Amino acid sequence: MTVAVKNGLRGQILDESARLFIEHGFNGTTINDIAASLGVTRTNIYYYFKDKKEILEELTGDIFMTGRMIAKKAAEPRADPVLALRELVEIFARVVLSNPVRYRVIERNEGYLGPELKVKVAAAKKKVFNDFRSVIQEGIGAGAFRPVDAGSAALAIIGMCSWAAWWYHPDPKRPIDGLIQFFVDFVLNALVPAGGRRRSRLDARGIIENVRNELAFLEKALS
Amino acid sequence: MTVAVKNGLRGQILDESARLFIEHGFNGTTINDIAASLGVTRTNIYYYFKDKKEILEELTGDIFMTGRMIAKKAAEPRADPVLALRELVEIFARVVLSNPVRYRVIERNEGYLGPELKVKVAAAKKKVFNDFRSVIQEGIGAGAFRPVDAGSAALAIIGMCSWAAWWYHPDPKRPIDGLIQFFVDFVLNALVPAGGRRRSRLDARGIIENVRNELAFLEKALS
Repeated sequence: MTVAVKNGLRGQILDESARLFIEHGFNGTTINDIAASLGVTRTNIYYYFKDKKEILEELTGDIFMTGRMIAKKAAEPRADPVLALRELVEIFARVVLSNPVRYRVIERNEGYLGPELKVKVAAAKKKVFNDFRSVIQEGIGAGAFRPVDAGSAALAIIGMCSWAAWWYHPDPKRPIDGLIQFFVDFVLNALVPAGGRRRSRLDARGIIENVRNELAFLEKALS
Repeated sequence: MTVAVKNGLRGQILDESARLFIEHGFNGTTINDIAASLGVTRTNIYYYFKDKKEILEELTGDIFMTGRMIAKKAAEPRADPVLALRELVEIFARVVLSNPVRYRVIERNEGYLGPELKVKVAAAKKKVFNDFRSVIQEGIGAGAFRPVDAGSAALAIIGMCSWAAWWYHPDPKRPIDGLIQFFVDFVLNALVPAGGRRRSRLDARGIIENVRNELAFLEKALS
């Protein structure tokens, strides 16, 4: 899956601006700084972007793309909520890890977006949250996930993946596919009940037995 | 557990400055803004703080406090890695949720810290990471946790909790204790192998939680 086309000067301007906006803030970065940092002229920059604000606004694109990809996947009919959640986590983690700097720049400089775009970014984020929550809620209803608070679980997952933008630096020795699978595995183990892939919603006997075992263990621990 | 004393004007200045630094950035906030926002005079502010930078530096205090609390806990001898990780998650989540705005301000304005403090903040964060990783690694060695990459697990946990600073707003209808327990439950389920609680002799709370979850599941199945 290709997440972002970064080739060419246009992509380099976006990446370098993101880096500078994070390091020096949006206000602390000029078009001159961006040009100097890339070893090009201001004119080269103005060929692609009207001004600094347009660069920042373009950088919010990843948020909307993620939102669309997640929404598309969440809207598909699904037989298996575990598989559906796996796919949402894969999409989200891949966007963050594919371009951590771009992902971070929004969080750091949201205040400088125009009011209209600010509202759109907030709506896109809210939609991603709602999509995660719905899939988790559905999985709980189907007995595929433990009965946790679906909203908190959605926020935990989004937080876990988003934070990677703060610590992951692209590194061939640490390919993103391994990390994506780590996130998927972490999330599914957190939500799927022990032995739960086999458990149907009607397995009352299994539950009673599990509770009995847990109580017996507790009794033993206390004596 | 008391995490931060926030009473008095001094605490109010810190909280209001944090809010303004996040909203308008450190450069976009003046001592006048802080005074006006609190309905006090500049002199009132200068009674407590030499300048704006001193306020920001004071706000990094939470990072160091968290670091010390985590380090103290991680250095204690432990019979049970599950219990030890539970306690680390509790401490960390409580600091973030007790004052989400203060926690966020550092991430947003780190660039404005003096070089010396910047190095110290980075070291404190690194220490927290190392402490989480060690406890997880030890738990894997003892067979209490699944054999995951301990470093990735530490980052996932820190990210999940840290991100709460972006979405949690203090709300009596959503007390932090419930969220802290949600995080603990999410993390332990992610890491403890299915049926693995039987290996941990001291985790009575985990057992109670498991029983409660099972009963909730059963109730849901029956309705």
